[in-house]
Amino acid sequence: MLTFDLLKTQRHARRGRLTLNHGVVETPVFMPVGTYGTVKGVMPRSLEEMGAQIILGNTFHLWMRPGLDVLRQFGGLHRFEGWQRPMLTDSGGFQVWSLGEMRKISEEGVRFASPVNGDKLFLTPEVSMQIQTVLNSDIVMQFDECTPYEVKGHLTTEAEARQSMELSRRWAVRSRDEFARLANPNALFGIVQGGMFENLRQESLDALVELDLPGYAVGGVSVGEPKDEMLRIMAHTPHRLPAHKPRYLMGVGTPEDLVEGVACGVDMFDCVMPTRNARNGHLFTRFGDLRLRNARYKLDDTPVDPTCACQACSTVSRAYLHHLDRCGEMLGPMLASIHNLHYYLNLMREVRESLDQGRFEAFRQQFKADRARGV
Amino acid sequence: MLTFDLLKTQRHARRGRLTLNHGVVETPVFMPVGTYGTVKGVMPRSLEEMGAQIILGNTFHLWMRPGLDVLRQFGGLHRFEGWQRPMLTDSGGFQVWSLGEMRKISEEGVRFASPVNGDKLFLTPEVSMQIQTVLNSDIVMQFDECTPYEVKGHLTTEAEARQSMELSRRWAVRSRDEFARLANPNALFGIVQGGMFENLRQESLDALVELDLPGYAVGGVSVGEPKDEMLRIMAHTPHRLPAHKPRYLMGVGTPEDLVEGVACGVDMFDCVMPTRNARNGHLFTRFGDLRLRNARYKLDDTPVDPTCACQACSTVSRAYLHHLDRCGEMLGPMLASIHNLHYYLNLMREVRESLDQGRFEAFRQQFKADRARGV
Repeated sequence: MLTFDLLKTQRHARRGRLTLNHGVVETPVFMPVGTYGTVKGVMPRSLEEMGAQIILGNTFHLWMRPGLDVLRQFGGLHRFEGWQRPMLTDSGGFQVWSLGEMRKISEEGVRFASPVNGDKLFLTPEVSMQIQTVLNSDIVMQFDECTPYEVKGHLTTEAEARQSMELSRRWAVRSRDEFARLANPNALFGIVQGGMFENLRQESLDALVELDLPGYAVGGVSVGEPKDEMLRIMAHTPHRLPAHKPRYLMGVGTPEDLVEGVACGVDMFDCVMPTRNARNGHLFTRFGDLRLRNARYKLDDTPVDPTCACQACSTVSRAYLHHLDRCGEMLGPMLASIHNLHYYLNLMREVRESLDQGRFEAFRQQFKADRARGV
Repeated sequence: MLTFDLLKTQRHARRGRLTLNHGVVETPVFMPVGTYGTVKGVMPRSLEEMGAQIILGNTFHLWMRPGLDVLRQFGGLHRFEGWQRPMLTDSGGFQVWSLGEMRKISEEGVRFASPVNGDKLFLTPEVSMQIQTVLNSDIVMQFDECTPYEVKGHLTTEAEARQSMELSRRWAVRSRDEFARLANPNALFGIVQGGMFENLRQESLDALVELDLPGYAVGGVSVGEPKDEMLRIMAHTPHRLPAHKPRYLMGVGTPEDLVEGVACGVDMFDCVMPTRNARNGHLFTRFGDLRLRNARYKLDDTPVDPTCACQACSTVSRAYLHHLDRCGEMLGPMLASIHNLHYYLNLMREVRESLDQGRFEAFRQQFKADRARGV
C-alpha cells in the first residue's frame, strides 16, 4: 500500500505526503540508515523523539545476520528491532556489487561467498523480493546493478553503462513479477540507472515508468563520482519522473546536497553521513561543520549548535563532547549521532515548512549563507 | 553538607535518607560508576529515568582528562557532564595504587608518571582534596592507600597491612585538615582499611571515628581476595561503624553481595560490574544471569527479564540483543548497560521497600531462591 499526495510545488521542489502500511511520511524526508536493524548508536525512542518518520534497513546485511529464520519468527523487521513507523529496505544489489572480486554477476543474478561464513550464495531479483517480503518493509526496492563510476581507474564507458542499465531494467521486470507473485502488501520502487549519461538515464526512466510502479528512485549516484557529476544527474533525472509519485535519491548526501536535491524535485533521501561522521567527531551545524577533535573546543562551554534543540545541545557543551571523544567514551558517538541526525531531520522539517509557506527559494538562500558563515 | 536520617532498622540492615548539597538519596543505594564523567554507554537522562540517585566520578581519571582547567571552567563535574543529582568522587588512591611499578608511595604521597602523557605527578592527601574541591562532588573520599590482598603471589602479612592502614590513618587526618582549609562545602568520608585482619579493621575504624567525619567507607575489599574473605570483612566492619552515619562499602559487587551487604549494615554501594558485564553480554536478571552470546538466544523472542520494566526489556527481545552483540553494534552495549543498571537500581528499590515494610529477611530469602532458579 502506498498513496502519495502532492500538497504543494515550488518550481521543481515539492511538498508531499506518503501513506504507507506503517504510517504517514511527510516529504521531503530524510531517512536514517539502520543497516543491521539498528541506526548505529541511537535508541529507537531517540529516533522517534527527533521526528524520524521512516528508517532504512539493508536487505543484504539482514539476510546474513540475523538471517531469515529469525526475521520470519518476528514477522519482519519492525517487531524485531522495536520500530513501529515505516521502513524502507534496499535490494541488496549495492552490497553484492561492493563485494568486488568476491562476486560474479550474470543475467540470472549475483553469485558470491558470504562475507560472514563463506557460504556460497546466489542473489537474484526473485530472492531479493523474497527476503524483502520476509522483512515486511513498507517500501521495497527492485533488485538492480549499481553501475560503477570507475573500476580501478577505468571510467565506465557509455556502452558499459548501457549494458548495466539494461540488465537493471530486465531485473526490474523480474522484481515486479516476483513481488506480485508473493502478494507482498507493501510498495515496490523502481531504480533509474544509466551512469553519468543523461540519454541512458532517460531511457531507463522511460522503461520504468511503463511498469507503473508506485515510486521511483535514482540510483548509481554517490558511487565515487566527482560532486559536479552527481549534481548534473541530480539536476537531470528527478524532475522527469512522474509528478504524482514519490522520488527517492539514493545515498545522498551532505546538507547542501539535500537542499539542492529538493530544489531538483527529490522527495526522499537516505545517507549514512550523519551517523558515520558523528562517530568520527564531524558534526553538522546550522553555521557549518564542526570537528570535535580540534583542540580549540577543549574549554568551549557553548553547545555544538546554539540553535539546535537536540538532546546533546540542550544538555552538554562542545568541551564535554571533545572530552568524551578524547577518552574514547561511547557516550561521545551516541550524543554526536543524535545531534547529527537531529540536524538532518530538522533541516528537512525547515524545508517542508518553507515549502508549506511558499518561501523555499528564500530558505535555500538563507541556508547557504548560514552554512557558509562557519561555526 | 550532609545529614543522614536513619528511618528503620532490621537487625543490622538499615533504611535511611541522605541529604546532600545536590539532593536527597534514599538508602540503601547503588551508585553507578561514571569514571570519566560518563556512566559508560548511558545517557544522563536514562540514568535519571531508571532512578539513579547518585553517581560516581573518578578523581584520578578526571584529573588526567579533561583536567582541572576544564573542570574549573564548568564550576565542577555536575555542569560539565549534565548531571544535576548528587555525586561522589573517590580520592584517586585506588587508581595510583593500580599503576603498580609505575608509582612510588612515600609518607608524603604517591609519585607517578601520567599514563596519558608521561608527566611526572605527585598525588597527596592535600592534592586529592584540592582536586575533589574543584570537582565539587557532594561526597569526597579521603586519600588512602588501598592495601593489596597479594602482590605477585605474596599474601599481605599482618605487619604489612598494619603499616598500610596506619599510613591511610595519617592521610585521613591530612585529608580532613586540607578539606577544612579549603572550606569545601561538601561531605568528607573516611575509609577503613586493615586488609583481611579484623583487629586492624577495628583499630582503623576506632581512629577514624575519633575524627568524627560525616560518613565512613570500608575500603580494601574487592581487590582480588577470595569471596569468603570479602564476606568475612563485610560481616565484621560495617555494623561496627557509627549507627547515625552513612556506611559505604567500596567497589562491591554482585547482586548477591549487595543484598548480603545490606544485611551486614551497609548503606551505599558502587561497582563497575553492571556496566562492564553489560558490554561483555553478561546480563543480570531476577532469575539468574544470562549470557547473551549463547546461541540458544538466537531465536528467543522473550525479553531478557520478563519482570523488568527497563527500556530494553519493554521494547526488544533476547534474540535482538544477541543479534546486536554478534554484529558488534553499539546499541547492544547501550541496551545491555541500561538493563543491568536498571536491574541493580530496581533491586535496591525492592530492598528499600522490604525494609520500609519490615520484611527484609523474607525478601532476602526470596531473592536468593529467585536468583538460583536460573533463566
